[in-house]
Amino acid sequence: MTDEADRPAADDDTDPDAGGPSITVAVVDAETPGNIGTIARSMKNFGLSDLLLVDPPELDPEGEAYGFAGQAREDVLPNAREVSFDYLVENFHTVGSTAVTNEDERSHTRYPFKTPAELADSLRGVETDTCVVFGRERVGLTNDELARLDEVCSIPAAADYPVLNLGQAATIVLYELRELTVAETQHPDERHQRAEERAVEGLDDQFGDFLEAIDHPEEKRPKARRLWRRLVGRAHPTGREATTLRGIFRRAAQAVERRDEE
Amino acid sequence: MTDEADRPAADDDTDPDAGGPSITVAVVDAETPGNIGTIARSMKNFGLSDLLLVDPPELDPEGEAYGFAGQAREDVLPNAREVSFDYLVENFHTVGSTAVTNEDERSHTRYPFKTPAELADSLRGVETDTCVVFGRERVGLTNDELARLDEVCSIPAAADYPVLNLGQAATIVLYELRELTVAETQHPDERHQRAEERAVEGLDDQFGDFLEAIDHPEEKRPKARRLWRRLVGRAHPTGREATTLRGIFRRAAQAVERRDEE
Repeated sequence: MTDEADRPAADDDTDPDAGGPSITVAVVDAETPGNIGTIARSMKNFGLSDLLLVDPPELDPEGEAYGFAGQAREDVLPNAREVSFDYLVENFHTVGSTAVTNEDERSHTRYPFKTPAELADSLRGVETDTCVVFGRERVGLTNDELARLDEVCSIPAAADYPVLNLGQAATIVLYELRELTVAETQHPDERHQRAEERAVEGLDDQFGDFLEAIDHPEEKRPKARRLWRRLVGRAHPTGREATTLRGIFRRAAQAVERRDEE
Repeated sequence: MTDEADRPAADDDTDPDAGGPSITVAVVDAETPGNIGTIARSMKNFGLSDLLLVDPPELDPEGEAYGFAGQAREDVLPNAREVSFDYLVENFHTVGSTAVTNEDERSHTRYPFKTPAELADSLRGVETDTCVVFGRERVGLTNDELARLDEVCSIPAAADYPVLNLGQAATIVLYELRELTVAETQHPDERHQRAEERAVEGLDDQFGDFLEAIDHPEEKRPKARRLWRRLVGRAHPTGREATTLRGIFRRAAQAVERRDEE
């Protein structure tokens, strides 16, 4: 961790959206090094690299921060910079995260606010150096701190216990910002390769032949075929599923026919 | 933690959506008690209460699980039940969470899969006892385990480091399922009370009077008013904001006029 921020903000912008926001994360007055490690790891999971720390605890390379950071122990965490709260206010479009909001427009400290999903939507296409600011574990960001930040973001949670752990809250906000920060995910382009319609119809016909071969009562076959069509229609079979099942029904029909011949 | 599951699944269903899914969380073979505590806390944050543990580590009431659980140390964690993997398969519609997916339909162990948001959409309105299953910290769920589960869910993350910490992964999935599980959030119904259109137009007119009072060049006034209208239009001012700013501009105009009279 370098001691004071003398580099300009976001000079190593790796944002995939040319012209979109560059996003930095700041943690104010964290008590637990482990939470900083957790946040560093989530940052790396969601394509972020710039971590700023205001009044951080000691981050021992043998301690919890590094223990929780996963592969972020190699880059995000050692490159984290200690800065002042003023530095955040002066250099970034700042978004303060809080579980506790005001109820209406009578106070502007924590109102209006956006959900993390709304925040992501509102930043899309806006060229800005944005810093999402998270507060200390037990009391979060103070009113005085939030009053100095530009926007407020709050995660919708259960009314009777809306206060997430610091690391969990940061993870959710970064997850929601992922479309602005992750150039390429680990997922294949298609999460679900559906069979061609011809293959699904072929499976349907094969099921009909199968019903006939096993001598399913003729008057019940249309209903059974409809039921099958509904089930398969909802499941969107892959080509492999359609082909394999078609083969199984064909083999079953043949087995019955062979037995009848014997 | 009661030792073996002899109660029927989901007998204390607190799901707000009558007719929707009841959602249970299972953690298989966790190494770190802290992660179980983190998951218990996130469950409570997102309106869930039923936690099942397969081959869990010792959960010492003075240890990390309870230390990380926040208020869930009062209910979710002490009510967690130790069960077998078979119990999950036999009693629930099971969804296995994994960072590593197959690439296409040639293997069905981890393909097709849904993102957490897609999982939430697909469960909406379906009456089912669903159990979301999370695996051990370093290697997740094995192929043999995933093969026995009904569906696969995977969080989109950065291709070069998609493996989230166990607690973080569970938190994101539960966050995405919140609309099925959280009856009431901590947020007010309106996250943003916009001023009535009349108040925004009034502010706009007042800005025009203000430009006149300060003797802004007459030929530049239409452009300045247009600029102001765009800025305010994007910001969706609250009633309080519109009223306060209108008052400030009125006062400024009066101050200028008084000075001119002196």
